[in-house]
Amino acid sequence: MEHQFTVEGMTCGHCEKAVTQALRGVDPQAEVRIDRQAQQVQVRSSAAREALAAAIREEGYRVA
Amino acid sequence: MEHQFTVEGMTCGHCEKAVTQALRGVDPQAEVRIDRQAQQVQVRSSAAREALAAAIREEGYRVA
Repeated sequence: MEHQFTVEGMTCGHCEKAVTQALRGVDPQAEVRIDRQAQQVQVRSSAAREALAAAIREEGYRVA
Repeated sequence: MEHQFTVEGMTCGHCEKAVTQALRGVDPQAEVRIDRQAQQVQVRSSAAREALAAAIREEGYRVA
């Protein structure tokens, strides 16, 4: 399943890594693509959308 | 010895951690204080100033 999130607050490559790792914490098989400039995070995962969004928020970023 | 650097490009807390770890790679005993807003990095270390500056640069930040 493909999920798309608008994520605010990712300022650098470390932030991308942190978000990716947070998502992989929910689903180790998750495929994550991030366009930081556009604030877009695309996740291919069987996990529930809310679980993925919660992981991003817990990492300190705002899911719009 | 106290060293003060003006470092550009630190955008978030992950960047502060990356700079701190880079400096500790040169001197594990280094005491590091970072004011990200002011772009200031203060290092108490016996290491050579140029070695510390090089470590920051290798991490991808600009030492002014």
